[in-house]
Amino acid sequence: MDNCVFCKVIKGELPSNKVYEDELFFGILDINPVARGHALLLPKIHYRWTYDVPQFGQYFETARKLGLAVQKAVGATWVQFFTHGQVPHAHIHITPRSDDVTTAPFLAKWEEPKQLMKREFEEIAEKIRKAL
Amino acid sequence: MDNCVFCKVIKGELPSNKVYEDELFFGILDINPVARGHALLLPKIHYRWTYDVPQFGQYFETARKLGLAVQKAVGATWVQFFTHGQVPHAHIHITPRSDDVTTAPFLAKWEEPKQLMKREFEEIAEKIRKAL
Repeated sequence: MDNCVFCKVIKGELPSNKVYEDELFFGILDINPVARGHALLLPKIHYRWTYDVPQFGQYFETARKLGLAVQKAVGATWVQFFTHGQVPHAHIHITPRSDDVTTAPFLAKWEEPKQLMKREFEEIAEKIRKAL
Repeated sequence: MDNCVFCKVIKGELPSNKVYEDELFFGILDINPVARGHALLLPKIHYRWTYDVPQFGQYFETARKLGLAVQKAVGATWVQFFTHGQVPHAHIHITPRSDDVTTAPFLAKWEEPKQLMKREFEEIAEKIRKAL
């Protein structure tokens, strides 16, 4: 789709910290992470919602694979998956977490400054790619 | 697992508003909903995390099917999926939403009193089962 930020990322017209790619899906680090290692998995073809993706099961199987790599890369104790839709190109959020799940908020709260430097993003992305 | 609330729900030892059941999965309404129609999909076998479920893709395929029924039943404009883990038996949260996704909070905020009466739960569950 023209003017879709994620379509441009997938085509390489916008920069990203790529962590995963296969025939159907494309994984990047979220530029506004809620946790170190927060990743997004996108279908390469433009769909509005995750549930519009015909290979929905395979989509989540791939998110699981990426999620376990994220968990390993950042040493998290558990991994959360969630869908939203502010960017109108389907994406699954994958967030590594180490807070106590029995009392943890539904969404991660950063305990440290939320901005990451370019170099930090690159280091995390490299660790995730190695953990896949 | 002994003493697992969701294992007891699945075995019928604790009451629930069941909305879905097949060989592997069991769907109920969340008793503390963040939206009218908020449902949970559980594997019948006890696993700690959603990503421990061997049929992870099929698990989400089933959540998609249930999610579309929830959306139809309550007339929502979009559906959100998320995983957490306060109850230590894997479950996918399915929440129907009608807020403007471009500005919506990551989690639904109730605009009305959060408690539902037993009869309201039963009516919603019935609508979802019919929409499947």
